[in-house]
Amino acid sequence: MKKFYIAKSRRLRSTPYTSRIEKQGLTAYTIYNHMLLPASFGNLEKEYLHLKEHVQVWDVAAERQVQIKGKDATKLVQLMTCRNISKAKIGRCYYAPIIDEQGGMLNDPVLLKLEENKWWISLADSDISLYAKGIASGLSLQVEISEPDVNILAIQGPKSFKLMEKILGKKINELKFFGFNYYDFKGNKFLVARSGWSKQGGYEVYVKNRDAGKKLYDELFLAGKEFQVKPGCPNLIERIESALLSAGNDFDNGDNPYECGFDQYIDIDSNINYLGKKSLIEISKKGISRKLMGVLIDADKIEVTEEMPLYNVENLVGFLRSATYSPNLKKIVGIAMIKKEFWDKKTPFELKIGDKKSKGVLCDLPIV
Amino acid sequence: MKKFYIAKSRRLRSTPYTSRIEKQGLTAYTIYNHMLLPASFGNLEKEYLHLKEHVQVWDVAAERQVQIKGKDATKLVQLMTCRNISKAKIGRCYYAPIIDEQGGMLNDPVLLKLEENKWWISLADSDISLYAKGIASGLSLQVEISEPDVNILAIQGPKSFKLMEKILGKKINELKFFGFNYYDFKGNKFLVARSGWSKQGGYEVYVKNRDAGKKLYDELFLAGKEFQVKPGCPNLIERIESALLSAGNDFDNGDNPYECGFDQYIDIDSNINYLGKKSLIEISKKGISRKLMGVLIDADKIEVTEEMPLYNVENLVGFLRSATYSPNLKKIVGIAMIKKEFWDKKTPFELKIGDKKSKGVLCDLPIV
Repeated sequence: MKKFYIAKSRRLRSTPYTSRIEKQGLTAYTIYNHMLLPASFGNLEKEYLHLKEHVQVWDVAAERQVQIKGKDATKLVQLMTCRNISKAKIGRCYYAPIIDEQGGMLNDPVLLKLEENKWWISLADSDISLYAKGIASGLSLQVEISEPDVNILAIQGPKSFKLMEKILGKKINELKFFGFNYYDFKGNKFLVARSGWSKQGGYEVYVKNRDAGKKLYDELFLAGKEFQVKPGCPNLIERIESALLSAGNDFDNGDNPYECGFDQYIDIDSNINYLGKKSLIEISKKGISRKLMGVLIDADKIEVTEEMPLYNVENLVGFLRSATYSPNLKKIVGIAMIKKEFWDKKTPFELKIGDKKSKGVLCDLPIV
Repeated sequence: MKKFYIAKSRRLRSTPYTSRIEKQGLTAYTIYNHMLLPASFGNLEKEYLHLKEHVQVWDVAAERQVQIKGKDATKLVQLMTCRNISKAKIGRCYYAPIIDEQGGMLNDPVLLKLEENKWWISLADSDISLYAKGIASGLSLQVEISEPDVNILAIQGPKSFKLMEKILGKKINELKFFGFNYYDFKGNKFLVARSGWSKQGGYEVYVKNRDAGKKLYDELFLAGKEFQVKPGCPNLIERIESALLSAGNDFDNGDNPYECGFDQYIDIDSNINYLGKKSLIEISKKGISRKLMGVLIDADKIEVTEEMPLYNVENLVGFLRSATYSPNLKKIVGIAMIKKEFWDKKTPFELKIGDKKSKGVLCDLPIV
């Protein structure tokens, strides 16, 4: 595939770590929330193998925060998500689909309850601050909505635990999955969550002070030498195998949360109030006719830039939305929206990659 | 400056014209409304000179449309903009700042009034559909909000008039600036507006049928041979000289429309109702303390990826937000947010580009 440069400008915002990662061998960016998000250091497969064995530091400042603060903060956050947050606890993270009144997906952020009336919405790629502002203005809610200058560093991989213990001390080990707390490093306090966009374990540090963040970045590489630390970024192979869905890739506004497999994050039974609840009740009654599934394809190269149709003879099986070659499975792994009649995984399919037809089968998510 | 590739994926949506422009020598993209927007064909200065003399065809499908339709459509569009649209006419385009309740800029789209209760908002880079959905849900407005599959082709440059006359016939010449109408080409009807993101004259074709759009694209290059037609894209040099502001580059949510020089598009006197009106009245009473102006700098190379401070000795003059070298003026031209005490243009400034200090002066917008 031909490659194209990215034309930089202020609109594609840099992060506090940009000059560092560019010196460390970055080769490609994607754009996420109007910001530079590192996408490759030149060899996806090597980065994948390294991530699964060692530890990486990621510049994921593009996971922007929408801060919702004030008397009606929880009401507003609940209005945007079908997940019941009425019992949410301070110090916990909540994966929460954000939907519109028709039940269409808008985003799948992680919510952080910071205080009784203060939340951060740690975003996938869409301007949820505008949705929040629209609702708040329409309903005259008492909230302040802002984008604080928070620039996340993710520390991911099996050795992330040792590295973070070395830097922040033993008490970091008490942090449970999807919990967050505050930790001191050289006179600065950092919000650290045990979370991240890989299934290899690790942390996300929500950095509010840019200079302190740069110092922490440098320290992670110094202290991380003994753990073979490398710069990295969310890895396409790892995230597809682990079924970490990507908003805009695997689903969009045309899909509802049931089709995305988000059933456990949907509450239509209790009396909470959110936009799209009526639509989800309707959808739930009718049942869905398609859902996201895994695919395995006998080929070794693919670049998905648009939905790709999967056929069994003349029958449309579904559409491939993300895919890449997995060096572990020696096949292409992918995520596809599949029609109900094929959910039993018995039907193979064919897919055209360039001029060549390849064969594939359906599988469950996560793939490995 | 080191260059980086763009990592393509479905989330960075392709357009119907992507495969064509890539074959025609495209070298760089930017991302705009989650979509690929061509940014360079390898030589910005050559493209600039060509645009000012001949005609170019641009893939600007990234100018996405938010369609607002239904009984409350006009009410909702008015709620989002400080421009008075109560006397807007069907068949006309309206440049209209979109602001939030604090008066902060969210977007500067062109509005198209299609029918009495049907509008297109032709967007700059932010998810205004989410703002519209939030307001509509909050106020229970009777509207349908959608993103129709409209993929704009812009035909720009002084010879665009001859080219479009050749393809669509003499009646296209009756179209006035910022007017739009429907024209037939080979059995398909196209909405054509006399508009575009250059000051060199031209049209934007709002293409609804992808196949018809591709045929039109090919025909523009066939018929355009005699006019030296070339593929192109919004040109950084031309747009800065012409003061076509770029949302996210020249202004962001921290700026209000007065600071952007949008006074003629602000109505705080009549009884129209929009979000942020109170804030704008306050701002208007106090007066602003900074505004966007042009700059000319004695240097021949710059890449603006963040705000760059401009100093006179120890005094901060303002911040440079967009800039590039102009082969016509043999200087760097730019757009900067300038503090009030320097509006008289008498104070020169210094700017650090890399390790070197360069001298500059302020000027009016547009620059030429």
